[in-house]
Amino acid sequence: MEESKSKILGVLGGGQLGRMLIQSAINYNQDIHILDPDPQAPCRDISQRFVCGSLKDFDTVYNFGKGCDVITVEIESVNTEALEKLQAEGKSVFPQPHILRLIQDKREQKKFYQESGIPNADFVLTENKADVIAKKDFLPAVNKLGKDGYDGRGVQVIRTEADLEYAFDAPGLLEKLIDFDREIAVIVARNSNGDLSVYPSVECAFHPTANLVEFLFAPAEISSEIEKEAQEIAKSVILKLDMVGILAVEMFVTKEGKVLVNEIAPRPHNSGHHTIEANFTSQFEQHLRAVMNWPLGDTALRCPAAMINLLGEEGYTGEAIVEGREEAMTENGVYIHLYGKKITKPFRKMGHVTILDEEIENLKRRANRIKDLIKIKS
Amino acid sequence: MEESKSKILGVLGGGQLGRMLIQSAINYNQDIHILDPDPQAPCRDISQRFVCGSLKDFDTVYNFGKGCDVITVEIESVNTEALEKLQAEGKSVFPQPHILRLIQDKREQKKFYQESGIPNADFVLTENKADVIAKKDFLPAVNKLGKDGYDGRGVQVIRTEADLEYAFDAPGLLEKLIDFDREIAVIVARNSNGDLSVYPSVECAFHPTANLVEFLFAPAEISSEIEKEAQEIAKSVILKLDMVGILAVEMFVTKEGKVLVNEIAPRPHNSGHHTIEANFTSQFEQHLRAVMNWPLGDTALRCPAAMINLLGEEGYTGEAIVEGREEAMTENGVYIHLYGKKITKPFRKMGHVTILDEEIENLKRRANRIKDLIKIKS
Repeated sequence: MEESKSKILGVLGGGQLGRMLIQSAINYNQDIHILDPDPQAPCRDISQRFVCGSLKDFDTVYNFGKGCDVITVEIESVNTEALEKLQAEGKSVFPQPHILRLIQDKREQKKFYQESGIPNADFVLTENKADVIAKKDFLPAVNKLGKDGYDGRGVQVIRTEADLEYAFDAPGLLEKLIDFDREIAVIVARNSNGDLSVYPSVECAFHPTANLVEFLFAPAEISSEIEKEAQEIAKSVILKLDMVGILAVEMFVTKEGKVLVNEIAPRPHNSGHHTIEANFTSQFEQHLRAVMNWPLGDTALRCPAAMINLLGEEGYTGEAIVEGREEAMTENGVYIHLYGKKITKPFRKMGHVTILDEEIENLKRRANRIKDLIKIKS
Repeated sequence: MEESKSKILGVLGGGQLGRMLIQSAINYNQDIHILDPDPQAPCRDISQRFVCGSLKDFDTVYNFGKGCDVITVEIESVNTEALEKLQAEGKSVFPQPHILRLIQDKREQKKFYQESGIPNADFVLTENKADVIAKKDFLPAVNKLGKDGYDGRGVQVIRTEADLEYAFDAPGLLEKLIDFDREIAVIVARNSNGDLSVYPSVECAFHPTANLVEFLFAPAEISSEIEKEAQEIAKSVILKLDMVGILAVEMFVTKEGKVLVNEIAPRPHNSGHHTIEANFTSQFEQHLRAVMNWPLGDTALRCPAAMINLLGEEGYTGEAIVEGREEAMTENGVYIHLYGKKITKPFRKMGHVTILDEEIENLKRRANRIKDLIKIKS
C-alpha cells in the first residue's frame, strides 16, 4: 500500500476547525488547500495554498475545487451547486453535497428525521411570523429559521404568547421545548469503505444567552443504556444519510430517559475539541481519515476531560488580548488552543481550553476556575 | 498578565524539529519565522515567514534574527557570531550562543564535563590521525571529530589497531568505549525565570551501523536510584551551562550501575518525540515554553510508549513513497508522523512512529512489527 500523498485536500472554510485539521494533516504529509473569504483567516499561514474568496459563489468554489482531489468543509454555508458539479466530474466531496443541502435547511432536517425514524422533538413547519402566531398552541417551543442559522443565530425560545412578537418572519419551524435532563453529543465517523466508528458521549452545558457550548464534559454522566442508545442513534443518522466524514450529533436526554436528536453537524465540531488530548484519536484526525478513506482510528477516551470555549468577552471589540493565559499554563493538565483570530468581539470563538483530570468532580471545579481566569479582551 | 502575542520566534533550521515546534506553536498563536537553506524544507508551508538561506552565513543569520524577538535553533551548526551580535543588541537567543559554541566542538564539551564534575567516559584529545595512532593504548575507544559531526557522522568505534587506518585526521578525541548495560536519555527544560523541569528517562536502542536511534522506549527499565541519578545529572548539566531552552542528555548506564553523560543536544531531540502523545506536555511545547519564558509544563508520562524512526530504506534515493502506512493506521495506539520531505535517501529521517501501550512487553513486539511494516522507498 502506498501513500496517497499526491492527493490534495481542499477545505471550504479556513477557521479554527480547518486550523486544527491542518495540525493533524501535517503528521501525514497531507497537503491542504483552504478557501475562505477572510484574508486573515486562522488557516492563512499554515496551509499549502490559501485562496481568499467567497464560499457561496459558484465559480469561486468550483474553481477552487478543480485544483483539489478531495473536498471537505468546515462550515455548512457553502455553494452546494458547485460541489455537485465537482462531484459529478469525479472529485470526492465529503460530506456529500446532498448532506450539506439538508443541513442548510432545518426544515428538511426535521423531515429527514421523521422519515428515517430518528427520534427527535415534535415540530410543526412555519412559513412566516403570522404562521408562528397561528400555531401558538404549540408553545412553549423553539423557533428555528429554516436557513442561514449558525452558531446560535436563527434559534430562539418562544415560551409564552408574549414572546411571539420576536417570531421569525421567514420559513422555519416550531419545535416542542424539551424539558431535558441533560444535553449530550456523539461524534460518529464513516469512510468510503463503510467503516464506522463512534466516540463516547460527551455532556454539553450551553451558555444561557449566547446559545454556544459553554462547558463540555467527557464522558457524559449517563447510564450505559442511554450511552448505548445515543451511540446507536448517531450511527443510524450517519448511515441513513449515507454520509462519509465525521458527524456530530447533539441530543437531548429527557427526564424520562428518552434520547432525541437536536442538531447535527457534518464536520469537526465544538463538542469534539477535547478529543485532541483526551481521546486516542482526535476528531480532526478522524475527519481526515474518513474523507481520505484511510482506516478510522480508536475513539476511546484516554482520560476524563472538560472543555471550555474562550469567547470574546462582552463589551470588547478590537485587537484581541488574552488575559490569564500564563497563570492557566502553570496548572497541570490544562491545554490552551488559540485560534489565531486578530479581532475579538462579544461571544466570538477565540479559542478553547481542554482540562484533563481523572476526577470528574475536579473537572467541574477546574473548568469554572479556568473560565474565570482566561478572558479575551481588547 | 497579557499574552506576548506580538513577539516573533525565529528558528534557525526548518526541518522536522521546527515542524513539530510549529504544530505546538499554533495552539498559542505564536508566530514563527524559519530560516533554512533548503527551499523545500519541512517548515516551508506552515510558518508565518520562511526565509531560504544559509544558517552558517553571518549576514543571513543576523538579518533574519533582526526581524525576530526571540531566536532559537533546531540544529547546532549555525553561525554563532551572528547570534552573539543579536544577543548583544538585546534579542533573546536561546539556547545562548556560548552553548552552541560548546556543542559545535566535542572537545570543548568533554573539557566542560571534566571541569564541571559531570560524569562522562574517560577521554584523550587527538590532533590528527597520527596522534590517534600514537594513543593506541587507549583502545577500544570511540573516535569523535571535534567539529562538524551530526546525526551519526563524525563518530566511529576503533576497537583494534587494525581499525586505526580509519582514524579521523583532524582535531578530535578518543573516548573509552563504555561496556554499557543500556543507553538512556533525559530531557530537561529551563526558562529565563529559572524554572526547571525534567522528563522521565527513556531507553534508546541505536541502529547498529547508522548510529541513529532505532527504537526508543519510555519509561526506561532502570531502578529508581539510577532514574534519580540520571535526572540529577541532567539538571546539573543545564544549570552548569546556565542554559535556557530544552536540553537532551544522552547517557550510558554501565554494567556497574554508573551513569555517564554521552552526548547533549540543546534543542528538541529524537529521544523526546514520543512526548507528543505519551507525556502531558510534549518536548516541543516545553521548548516553546522555555524559550518564551512561559511557565513550564507537566513532564509526567501518561502512558508507556515506544518510538521508531522511519529512516530512508537502504538502496532507495528519490521521491519518497511510504509503504505500509495504512496498515499501520489500523492498529490502536499507533501515531505516525511524516516530516514532509519529498526526497528519500538511505537513513534519512523521514518520519517517526509512536506506539502507546500499557504493557512494555507489547511495546517491544509492536515496535518491531511496525518497523518491519512501514518502509520509506522511492
